[in-house]
Amino acid sequence: MQRYFIYLSYDGTNYNGWQIQPNGITIQQKLVEALSTLLQEKIEVVGAGRTDAKVHAKCMVAHFDSIKEDLDIELLVHKLNCFLPQDIAIQKIVKVNDEAHARFSATSREYHYYIAFQKSPFKRNYVWQLSRKPDLTVMNEAAAHLMVYSDFTSFSKVHTDTKTKICTVAEAKWEVIDENTWRFTIRADRFLRNMVRAIVGTLLEVGYGKQSVEGFCRIIEDRDRSNAGASVPGHGLFLVDVEYPSSIYKEIKSNQ
Amino acid sequence: MQRYFIYLSYDGTNYNGWQIQPNGITIQQKLVEALSTLLQEKIEVVGAGRTDAKVHAKCMVAHFDSIKEDLDIELLVHKLNCFLPQDIAIQKIVKVNDEAHARFSATSREYHYYIAFQKSPFKRNYVWQLSRKPDLTVMNEAAAHLMVYSDFTSFSKVHTDTKTKICTVAEAKWEVIDENTWRFTIRADRFLRNMVRAIVGTLLEVGYGKQSVEGFCRIIEDRDRSNAGASVPGHGLFLVDVEYPSSIYKEIKSNQ
Repeated sequence: MQRYFIYLSYDGTNYNGWQIQPNGITIQQKLVEALSTLLQEKIEVVGAGRTDAKVHAKCMVAHFDSIKEDLDIELLVHKLNCFLPQDIAIQKIVKVNDEAHARFSATSREYHYYIAFQKSPFKRNYVWQLSRKPDLTVMNEAAAHLMVYSDFTSFSKVHTDTKTKICTVAEAKWEVIDENTWRFTIRADRFLRNMVRAIVGTLLEVGYGKQSVEGFCRIIEDRDRSNAGASVPGHGLFLVDVEYPSSIYKEIKSNQ
Repeated sequence: MQRYFIYLSYDGTNYNGWQIQPNGITIQQKLVEALSTLLQEKIEVVGAGRTDAKVHAKCMVAHFDSIKEDLDIELLVHKLNCFLPQDIAIQKIVKVNDEAHARFSATSREYHYYIAFQKSPFKRNYVWQLSRKPDLTVMNEAAAHLMVYSDFTSFSKVHTDTKTKICTVAEAKWEVIDENTWRFTIRADRFLRNMVRAIVGTLLEVGYGKQSVEGFCRIIEDRDRSNAGASVPGHGLFLVDVEYPSSIYKEIKSNQ
């Protein structure tokens, strides 16, 4: 058996998220179907994480094992892109060591969340439209505290199977992309389910003056999800990067 | 009665083009419904031109007449944007003189056509994906001849009600946008139906070596649509600008 990492991007608009489930079409399901058909063996796919319904990925990583130890990788990428629907694109496939794991070997993940203040026909599935601008400075002040705390129980789904709620946030900031579009960037070693969208929702409460920066810190300290702001919609969220230690790759990692 | 110009953008993916028709939803229809409902009078809308099914507009202009001579324009723009679906956005409405006509007063129109050489989930409705790159230099050589000729019968729909096939092309060029995306820009005083897509299709034949630059000129000179290349798909096409003489506006044209 050989383990492979597969790098892909997708528009989540028409999917019920990453994870295979009884109801609704998912990205993982499409990938399992495509790989199993093209490789003519039963393939299982493990993702670096789950994305929820409508959430997009500019770079998702997953692993799969194949009995074919010396796959023609370029040909498989080409065939997958022909087989898969237009809203899922494979960037590359690389050979990794047996113990490499798309989820557990990842050392860093980065998400972007977009908000916009003008109706935009072309971005309607990729930004959350708000009618007025929140206070950018105070939102960045609050966001900076995310890099100080490490227990994010307050921003996690209540029913979840993760053992620990500890995450190390390396970056968290709001930026102005253009006159009517702002982006929130957050990078951490790991994320809890629903965490980014709950953080964005709570930061927006700060930005709209419904919550102070001190209140934001207290919410984190209280470790109670019910104190935090509502989750923002999935369609503004993008998974943009997943990092791994270079030791997991069998060959030199190719430039993207 | 007061005549108004309305500036809008739309994602054409889910529409059967601009023009009202018995089958399928169109942009014009949505606009007529929205204006008639909000102004509580029967409104007719005349566009600067027609866009076909799936074709987008970053800037379309249309005119309508209202018995309300002193509309609160900002409020109407806001209400229209709430009323209209997310894939149609109103930029502004301006008062114009009675004789101003969205179609006949326009002095210049500009279209963009996008082609791409990589599968892109986020651009799938906005670029035409091709598997290999045509010759950019030779396509631009051919495109330059569009500015020399003026009778474009060869690139017009065969059955059409226009009296003349004479257009003055002011700009026609291919540009590299990024490694995997190219854009064709064409600006002219007027366009015949299907003209841009037939030109792009014929230029691509030149770019792929199926047609010489001299052959391209002969196609124009022959004034026979059947000699030209096939029309390219609508979803790569954007109407991006419509220009009018400043004399038609009642007030100073506001900055966009």
